[in-house]
Amino acid sequence: MPGPHGRLTGRALDATGALSALTGNDLAMTVTSHDVLAIGNAIVDVIATAEDDFLVSHAIQKGGMTLIDEDRAEKLYAVMGPGQVISGGSAANTIAGIASLGGKGAFIGKVRNDQLGQLYRHDLTATGVIFRSEDATSGPMTARCLIAVTPDGQRSMSTYLGACQGLSTLDIEADLVRASRIVYLEGYLWDPPAAKDAFRKASQIAHSTGSQVALTLSDSFCVDRWRDEFLGLIRNGMVDIVFANEHELKSLYQTGDIDTAIAALRGEDVIGVVTRSEHGALAVTRSETVAVPAFPVERVVDTTGAGDLFAAGFLFGLATGRDHRDALRLGAMAASEIISHIGARPQASLSDMARQSGLL
Amino acid sequence: MPGPHGRLTGRALDATGALSALTGNDLAMTVTSHDVLAIGNAIVDVIATAEDDFLVSHAIQKGGMTLIDEDRAEKLYAVMGPGQVISGGSAANTIAGIASLGGKGAFIGKVRNDQLGQLYRHDLTATGVIFRSEDATSGPMTARCLIAVTPDGQRSMSTYLGACQGLSTLDIEADLVRASRIVYLEGYLWDPPAAKDAFRKASQIAHSTGSQVALTLSDSFCVDRWRDEFLGLIRNGMVDIVFANEHELKSLYQTGDIDTAIAALRGEDVIGVVTRSEHGALAVTRSETVAVPAFPVERVVDTTGAGDLFAAGFLFGLATGRDHRDALRLGAMAASEIISHIGARPQASLSDMARQSGLL
Repeated sequence: MPGPHGRLTGRALDATGALSALTGNDLAMTVTSHDVLAIGNAIVDVIATAEDDFLVSHAIQKGGMTLIDEDRAEKLYAVMGPGQVISGGSAANTIAGIASLGGKGAFIGKVRNDQLGQLYRHDLTATGVIFRSEDATSGPMTARCLIAVTPDGQRSMSTYLGACQGLSTLDIEADLVRASRIVYLEGYLWDPPAAKDAFRKASQIAHSTGSQVALTLSDSFCVDRWRDEFLGLIRNGMVDIVFANEHELKSLYQTGDIDTAIAALRGEDVIGVVTRSEHGALAVTRSETVAVPAFPVERVVDTTGAGDLFAAGFLFGLATGRDHRDALRLGAMAASEIISHIGARPQASLSDMARQSGLL
Repeated sequence: MPGPHGRLTGRALDATGALSALTGNDLAMTVTSHDVLAIGNAIVDVIATAEDDFLVSHAIQKGGMTLIDEDRAEKLYAVMGPGQVISGGSAANTIAGIASLGGKGAFIGKVRNDQLGQLYRHDLTATGVIFRSEDATSGPMTARCLIAVTPDGQRSMSTYLGACQGLSTLDIEADLVRASRIVYLEGYLWDPPAAKDAFRKASQIAHSTGSQVALTLSDSFCVDRWRDEFLGLIRNGMVDIVFANEHELKSLYQTGDIDTAIAALRGEDVIGVVTRSEHGALAVTRSETVAVPAFPVERVVDTTGAGDLFAAGFLFGLATGRDHRDALRLGAMAASEIISHIGARPQASLSDMARQSGLL
């Protein structure tokens, strides 16, 4: 909200001033690095409870993420119940989760210089994440995702991308990318047109310095929209780690059988992480398959962010040198925290939780 | 989210078109009336968890409401953790609670035509409350209250009044006041200078048509600031119902002894409602004292809005013809719902809850 973001940006720059050592001629002087750099759509969530009838009467795809235009966003908001406004965005939720686990994270994404954009910047920098992407000063407003949470805890999302559509290669700071062990990209980035090139640029820079690139498939409808391109990214070496839930994986390989889909993923030259809701999760490579059960949760309140936080735990584990099994366990734990309350940003300290569970 | 509020306002006007029957020469034709009209500061809450250390190091008065200027608001926000943004404002929380109980409510308050103002208008109208006060189109931004919630569930509030400072007699629509059984005013209205006159105008109109006027003392520091004027309002017949918690009541009568303070309140010519946290609540008049216990609550998460929702239950009970004991019970129930989660607006249907508890 209020803070002049000029100042906030200034502070973020100060905090990572050391990064400038990465550019120039003295690469050997590198003193700072991040566990993960996330690049994604910077979206404010507006979360309201709703009955299933509401989804039907307003033609909202249950459990999915549907892109909407500004007009539809206004009309849908007008009929939604009172909301809670909480910063979101898939990859940003992941990086906030990594920060909560004690990891060092950075984020690249696009907001406008409006009140929601200021709120967004505040919430992410308050977690300790470096976020110095420039605000858009004209064009569409900060993006928002209207989320209807039904009594079963399922969330149905309608997203107006707004300012996210302005993310471009200009926003990819090479030194931020180079200083990160893993660069994490959301599949949703394939929706705003200019972001694809940003995505490719980040991947190329990361690989040029030996960093790994991770991709989440985001949503089965997103996979439907971009199946061939996603398979291309996986098969041409653009990504090294792929996150998918069962729906997304079945959509990717166009099969109704999850075992067939998992076998296909195992044949790719990547680390494949498959989340299976209450059935736990798998990490598959050509040589090994590791499975962990779901982490116990008392009551599922809102599943928004479950996949994002699973990715947070897994990536934090991987970036800090843990094996796939321990990384999966951290993922399952982080996901369990996020589904126990409204909103997709952690409310408890994930590092405390991990210590109490013997995972850190 | 944004909805052009022109349209929202238009809709609100349509929905209450019948109210125009109250003006003109045909008062007998009155067909619509409200249980309660609330007039208060229209404030967006920004709620973040914090440790007690945070309050100390940033000089925040624990448990109180401190008025801050824009500069302090920016500085405090910059150091706060990630927040949840939920519409608030004391009297507005009360009217949202009355709507959740199934009552008919209206609200008068001032926001600006900015994103937070639009969010605020949406959240209140989405509950079914009539809110047709005009947006400010210049001047300070929509008000915000920075709320630090400590692990004990206590909330400490720092409020930047912003656009609320523009509320004036021009905002008091006589027909809205006349159509309401009870007009409810928050003591915090005494802080923005022009609102006092609005307060007095509303009280005079209400009394001219036989409606009752209720006042909450809001906060012990607010009582400190305005003690003599509050006592004047009570003693000159400007208010008929007074809400106070123990701290506020002791501050009003400048005594450290709650029994002395209650005795003093009993001597005034009003219905006095005293909330005593886990010790329940009292309604006192010159002729009668009624007490009820606190409503059971599993875990206190965030006490923000406890007093506001107590007032909602009591006023709804009174406006719908219930006696003081049943009205107090409704108040205790509504307060118990609000302290079980973050934010000061009901997340469950209070009318369902009241039915399940045998109170409706």
